[in-house]
Amino acid sequence: MLSRAEALALDASDPLAPFSKHFLLPQGIVYLDGNSLGALPLATSDRLVQLVRKQWGEALIGGWTTHDWLTLPRRVGDKIGRLIGADTGQVLVADSTSINLLKLLAGAVELQAPRSVILSQDGNFPTDLYIAQGLAALSGHRCRLRTVNPSEICAAIDAETAVVLLTEVDYRNGARLDMAAITACAHERGALILWDLAHSAGALPVALDACAVDLAVGCGYKYLNGGPGAPAFLYVAHALQPRLRPFLTGWLGHAEPFAFEADYRPAAGIERFLCGTPSILSLVALECGVDLLLEAPMDAIRHKSLALGDLFIDLVEGARLDFALASPREGEGRGSQVCLRHPQGYAIIQALIRRGVIGDFRSPDVLRFGFAPLYNRYTDIWDAVAALTAVMDAAEWDRPEFMRRQSVT
Amino acid sequence: MLSRAEALALDASDPLAPFSKHFLLPQGIVYLDGNSLGALPLATSDRLVQLVRKQWGEALIGGWTTHDWLTLPRRVGDKIGRLIGADTGQVLVADSTSINLLKLLAGAVELQAPRSVILSQDGNFPTDLYIAQGLAALSGHRCRLRTVNPSEICAAIDAETAVVLLTEVDYRNGARLDMAAITACAHERGALILWDLAHSAGALPVALDACAVDLAVGCGYKYLNGGPGAPAFLYVAHALQPRLRPFLTGWLGHAEPFAFEADYRPAAGIERFLCGTPSILSLVALECGVDLLLEAPMDAIRHKSLALGDLFIDLVEGARLDFALASPREGEGRGSQVCLRHPQGYAIIQALIRRGVIGDFRSPDVLRFGFAPLYNRYTDIWDAVAALTAVMDAAEWDRPEFMRRQSVT
Repeated sequence: MLSRAEALALDASDPLAPFSKHFLLPQGIVYLDGNSLGALPLATSDRLVQLVRKQWGEALIGGWTTHDWLTLPRRVGDKIGRLIGADTGQVLVADSTSINLLKLLAGAVELQAPRSVILSQDGNFPTDLYIAQGLAALSGHRCRLRTVNPSEICAAIDAETAVVLLTEVDYRNGARLDMAAITACAHERGALILWDLAHSAGALPVALDACAVDLAVGCGYKYLNGGPGAPAFLYVAHALQPRLRPFLTGWLGHAEPFAFEADYRPAAGIERFLCGTPSILSLVALECGVDLLLEAPMDAIRHKSLALGDLFIDLVEGARLDFALASPREGEGRGSQVCLRHPQGYAIIQALIRRGVIGDFRSPDVLRFGFAPLYNRYTDIWDAVAALTAVMDAAEWDRPEFMRRQSVT
Repeated sequence: MLSRAEALALDASDPLAPFSKHFLLPQGIVYLDGNSLGALPLATSDRLVQLVRKQWGEALIGGWTTHDWLTLPRRVGDKIGRLIGADTGQVLVADSTSINLLKLLAGAVELQAPRSVILSQDGNFPTDLYIAQGLAALSGHRCRLRTVNPSEICAAIDAETAVVLLTEVDYRNGARLDMAAITACAHERGALILWDLAHSAGALPVALDACAVDLAVGCGYKYLNGGPGAPAFLYVAHALQPRLRPFLTGWLGHAEPFAFEADYRPAAGIERFLCGTPSILSLVALECGVDLLLEAPMDAIRHKSLALGDLFIDLVEGARLDFALASPREGEGRGSQVCLRHPQGYAIIQALIRRGVIGDFRSPDVLRFGFAPLYNRYTDIWDAVAALTAVMDAAEWDRPEFMRRQSVT
C-alpha cells in the first residue's frame, strides 16, 4: 500500500504537475469529476473579459471579421483535431453533442441506404440513443436503432447496418472499446462508424485519421475544460465530406451565407456542418481549455491517467471496502475514470462530497471517479480513498440528508 | 428639417435616455447595427467573471444545482416571454434560431399530417427557408416549402398548408407583417403558425398569447443584446405543448434526464424542447441584456423606435440624396429599422463606416439602419444622416478600398 508520503513523492516527480497551477482549484476540495465538468483554466475569465469588452464592446458587428469570429468554429476545431489525431479541416466546433450526432447520423443513414440500422451499444449514453430514436421518427422510420452488448458489436454488424454508433469510453463504467479493431470491422462489413469521444478527447490518445474513422462527435465541457455547456465538436473524414449531406441546413453551413440566396447549397468542406450562428463567448472559453491541453504531451496524460486509476483501485482494494469494481482492472481497457458499485452509492457520494471529495453517482448504483491528469495529483487520489474509507468505516452515508436526489452528468 | 440643436433637445427629454449609460458605446461611433449585433451591456463582463470564477471555478459540477444552471433556459425564457407577450412556461432559451426552427417545424408538420406544406414568405431570412428545405429532405419529403409574396400569404393558406412560417419584421426592408390578422387567418384555415421574431423581440411590442400564436422562435444577439452568437429562444403555446412531439431528442428534453433511461420520453412542459446541454456562459450573458430591456416600458421603446425611424427618413428625404426608400414610409408598417436602396449600397456603407457610422449592407443593394431605442439617440440619427450626406455629396464611396467584400448579418 502506497503511503501518503510516497504519493507526495510521485507528485514531486510528475512532469504534468506544473499544469495544475493553470487551473482554479478550490482549497480543500479533491475534484474527481472533471469527466462531468472540467475545472476552470485561470486564463478563461481574463480572455472572456477581453473578448467581451475589447471585441464585442468596441468592434461590435465588425468583430465577425476583424477578430475572426467567423472562422473560430474551424480554428478551435483544428486545435481539437490535434488532440484526437485529426488532420486540419475535419473538425468543427458547433452546437451540442446531441445536435452534432443528429447531423452526422442523418447524413450517414442517407448515404448508406438501403441499409437502415444504426447499431449501438447497450448502455450507451442516453443522448446518443435518444437522438438515433428521434432520427428514426423524423425520417419516417427509414432507419432504426438496434443496441447490443458492447462485446458483441463486431458480430452484430451485418448487411443492414448503415452506421455503427459507439462511445469509446463508457460513461458509466469507464470501459474503453477498441477503436481500431471495431472501425476496421465496420468497414469490412460495409458500415460507416461514428465514435462519440465525450470521455476520450483530452483524456487519452485518439487516432481518428490513423484508424480511418468516418465520423466522430465529442464534448467540450469534460476533459477539454470549456465550461458548463461548452459547445461540442464534430469530425467528418475528408473523403466523406463531399458525400455527406447536411440536413440541419442552417444559414452558416451555406456555400455563400452572405449571398442570402433562397435555396440551400452546402459549403464545400467541414463548414457545411455549421448550422446557426455559433456562440463566440463559449467558443473562446473552450479555446482556453484546449490551448492548455495542447501544451501537454498526450502520452504523458495517458500515462498519468492510468497511474492515477491504478493507484485508486489499489488503495480501494487495499482498504477492503465493500465495493465491487465496475471498471476494467487493467488500464488499457479503461478511459480516465474508475467506477465502483454499491447499493448505497448515491448516499456514499453525498457523504464524500461533504468531506470535500467530489465524485459523482450514476443510476442505479455506480460511484464514478474521473481523473484529469492536468490538475489531479497522486495525493488527491490518496486523500480521496482515505475519505472514502472514513465514510464507509463510520457508515457516514447512512444519514437522512444524504437521501437520494438528482445528480448531474 | 430638424436641426441638431432640436435633436439634442429630443435627447434631453427622452425618457429612455438614461439607459444608454448601461451600455459600452465606443467613442465617436454611431451604431445603427443593433439589429445585427446588439451593443454590450456594461453589466455583462462582471457578470461573466462572477459566473466563471465564483460559480464554475468554485462550485464546479455542483453549480448545476447550487447555482440553478439547470433551470436557466426556462428562467431566461420566462423573462423573454415578458417582452413578447408570453405567459410563463412557454418560452425556452436553447440552441440557435435555426435549430429551434427545425424542432418546431418538425413537430408541427407531424401534427398537421396529411397537410404537408410549409408556407413562407418570399425573401424570408435564408435560414428559415433552408431549415424548411432540410426538414423536407430529412422527412423523406413528407413536407415541402412553398413561398409566396408576403402580401399574398393569407390568400395562399389552403387545405394543404400545415404551418405558416413567417418573420414578423423583414430583415431586408424592415416591413412588418400583421401578426394578429395573419395568425387568425391561418387558424381559420386550419394551419398552425410559427413566427420568427428575430427582428421583433426587444424592439417592439409582441403579443404572442393575445394573438393566439402557436409557435415562435427568435434571436438573442440582436435587440436582446446577448452577445455574438447568443443562444436563441423558442415559444410553444401551452395548449400545444403536450401534442407537439420533439424530434430533436437530446437528453435534457427527457422527462427524467438523470434517470439515464434507454428510451426517450419527452418532458411534460416546454423543457421537452431542450436538446443537449445548454451553454451557461451564453445564457448568463443573454440574461444581462434581457434584464436591461425588462426595465424599460415596451411602449416607450416602440414610440422612440418609430420616432428615430421617422426622423431618419425625414432627414434623408430632406437632404435629397439619391436613395430609394426600401422600408414602409408609415411607422406602423415597420419594425425598428429603415432601409434604403442604391446600386452602390455596399461601397456607401463602407464609406459611412469609415466616418464612424455603422449600418450594414444586404445584397443586392440595401443599406440597412437599425434603431435600438435603449442606446441610440436622436442626435445619432442626425449625425448619421449628416455623414451619409457628406459621403454622397463627395462621392466618397467611389474608392477602391470600398469595393465589395463579405458582410455579416
